[in-house]
Amino acid sequence: MSATATTSQPPTAATAHRAPVVAMVGAGQLARMTHQAAIALGVGLRVLATDGSDCALSAGPQHLIGSPDRLEDLRTLAAGADVLTFDHERVAPEHLAALQLDGVRLAPTASAKLLAQDKLHARRELAQSGFPVPPFAHAHSSADAASFAAQHGWPLVAKAPRGGYDGRGVFTLASPDAADHALPGQPDGLLLEPHLQIERELAVLIARSAAGEAVAYPVVQTVQHDAMCREILAPAPIAAGLAAQARELALAIADRIDATGILAVELFDTPDGLLVNELALRPHNSGHYTIEGCATSQFEQHLRAVLGWPLGLPTLLAPAVATVNIIGPPDGSDPASRIAGALAVPAAHVHLYGKTPRRGRKLGHVTVCGQDLAPTRQAAQLAAARLQDATR
Amino acid sequence: MSATATTSQPPTAATAHRAPVVAMVGAGQLARMTHQAAIALGVGLRVLATDGSDCALSAGPQHLIGSPDRLEDLRTLAAGADVLTFDHERVAPEHLAALQLDGVRLAPTASAKLLAQDKLHARRELAQSGFPVPPFAHAHSSADAASFAAQHGWPLVAKAPRGGYDGRGVFTLASPDAADHALPGQPDGLLLEPHLQIERELAVLIARSAAGEAVAYPVVQTVQHDAMCREILAPAPIAAGLAAQARELALAIADRIDATGILAVELFDTPDGLLVNELALRPHNSGHYTIEGCATSQFEQHLRAVLGWPLGLPTLLAPAVATVNIIGPPDGSDPASRIAGALAVPAAHVHLYGKTPRRGRKLGHVTVCGQDLAPTRQAAQLAAARLQDATR
Repeated sequence: MSATATTSQPPTAATAHRAPVVAMVGAGQLARMTHQAAIALGVGLRVLATDGSDCALSAGPQHLIGSPDRLEDLRTLAAGADVLTFDHERVAPEHLAALQLDGVRLAPTASAKLLAQDKLHARRELAQSGFPVPPFAHAHSSADAASFAAQHGWPLVAKAPRGGYDGRGVFTLASPDAADHALPGQPDGLLLEPHLQIERELAVLIARSAAGEAVAYPVVQTVQHDAMCREILAPAPIAAGLAAQARELALAIADRIDATGILAVELFDTPDGLLVNELALRPHNSGHYTIEGCATSQFEQHLRAVLGWPLGLPTLLAPAVATVNIIGPPDGSDPASRIAGALAVPAAHVHLYGKTPRRGRKLGHVTVCGQDLAPTRQAAQLAAARLQDATR
Repeated sequence: MSATATTSQPPTAATAHRAPVVAMVGAGQLARMTHQAAIALGVGLRVLATDGSDCALSAGPQHLIGSPDRLEDLRTLAAGADVLTFDHERVAPEHLAALQLDGVRLAPTASAKLLAQDKLHARRELAQSGFPVPPFAHAHSSADAASFAAQHGWPLVAKAPRGGYDGRGVFTLASPDAADHALPGQPDGLLLEPHLQIERELAVLIARSAAGEAVAYPVVQTVQHDAMCREILAPAPIAAGLAAQARELALAIADRIDATGILAVELFDTPDGLLVNELALRPHNSGHYTIEGCATSQFEQHLRAVLGWPLGLPTLLAPAVATVNIIGPPDGSDPASRIAGALAVPAAHVHLYGKTPRRGRKLGHVTVCGQDLAPTRQAAQLAAARLQDATR
């Protein structure tokens, strides 16, 4: 056959389609669960792992070992992918800006992502746009702290502007002495806020697509122990009016910041109304309940959103859904060795992340869907307890 | 530190647990979807692929390229795994027997698996145990066929005892001439049955664990076109008494044959009552609806069953669930290229298998959960049509 004859044939439809590839910075449990959704959608998920023990590597075949601190690794990750997205916040904003200049499609964009990376920046931006946030100040010295405390009283809550998660980088300043002690060690200063009277913590997930379509998931209550989210209760046991207000607020923030993918808006429910605490622009712990609890999981939704595909319904599928995180027990034992006990709890959906067990580390979660919140929550707690504690 | 001091330390709990490994013969869509369930349970799934294009390879990291016809490949696959199970029937029974002699734990066992591999063997065994099956004969010659037809009339349905699926190996013998023509080409003879009057085809999934625990899923109707299953409707639109009878029958078969894992019992609903058509001892196309439609998917249930873990609830989660298979269209185009149209159908759960498109090949499925069967089925059909046909 001549070369002319060959090139005159149209490309066959069968070879014209290439599976979309989503590149994800990070290879933890969020990447791992995103991969489950990617399989169903026929999407290739390529993750950036820092080493071979990252738990998404035992889930999927496509990975790169590297560092989110190295621009070259990020470029290699993004090469040939349709879009670059994130499993965590720990990537340098200047690298994201450089990737955008390269022409890499980021979802979310570098400027939107910065709102999740820098708590102080987020507070300022949200306040300037008129969204309700706690009173705050940026303190560089104990004099700054004393000035803020003169207005709001001691103790203060102090947060490192960047790098904190799961309670790391958050602490209480009880007195001027504590501020004297803490502030010199903070080259970027500290975000200060009053010790708020918080009725409960709430979270709302928004999915917003590259095409601008947005949907709001039900408002959930997040229950913290030791500053780490331990339980998610859906729907949050709050008045319908407050829930509607929370969803509207979160949708407005998503539009204002031009979010793409999943946006988690963490809220404080206070006597002064709802206040925005933090934003996360990625699938979020408060949304794990959506895997079984909603018509579309946050992981599938994130992929649909970043690829510009139509979004799925965020509808809750049961009157009550409870998720309880599985935390590495003090004895260092692996909850996975006790899975059979948890599976014996009727309706318990067990998710293990395949991570090396370590005290206080999130190693998995259990979700139960039910008719009433109290027994549903108890069932999830029982299954989680059986995983965490050999005596249960 | 002395050697004595070192060995006197107890092994740490953190290193004592090893993730269970399930080895699966085959790397098609059933292995691919089993892998999604394996991720949640923290189970390693190692699949045997015949080549690098098998669709489970783009889902998971653990695979072996080899042949289910080579005992050595099966031994390598099973080495170090907790249990060996299957994504298809195409593995030599003598190899399975040899593996059992090696001490490999098979789920199902070689003798149970043979009931799915050899239709004639299954008919005989089921009939001997008193289960209702269609009238049948084993024909080696056209005289055998004529003798069977003298009792039941022409045309006859003929099936190759081994190796057929999705309508392959099943054909109609319209006349003695057809039998004269067909039988000499069949060294193992043919399984003959009358042309039955079938009201509808039904299927029941049973999950039965290595510990003997068993649960029955709802009875579904399977809708065939061109001898391939195209739709699954759950629950089957049949009287409650008939459904209960089908479930009891399937549970009794599972116990009788000592099934382990998922057992699919295909049934004909006829004027003479329920008749058992075929058995499959693996996750089954008729159970894809369980991913979103039931409290526990057949894939998770299969893993729990073969590992001897407690089974999950098989409860249906919605009043009506419909699954429609996506079949490679005549023009050879890839349905994956049209996914956005399908995702725009509200409540459509799209599953693509990542297979090379080929006319008539199962490339994915769509499931919709709803309140009433007719609109639920229509929504699933619409999403499937949009994937299959560029003009929809």
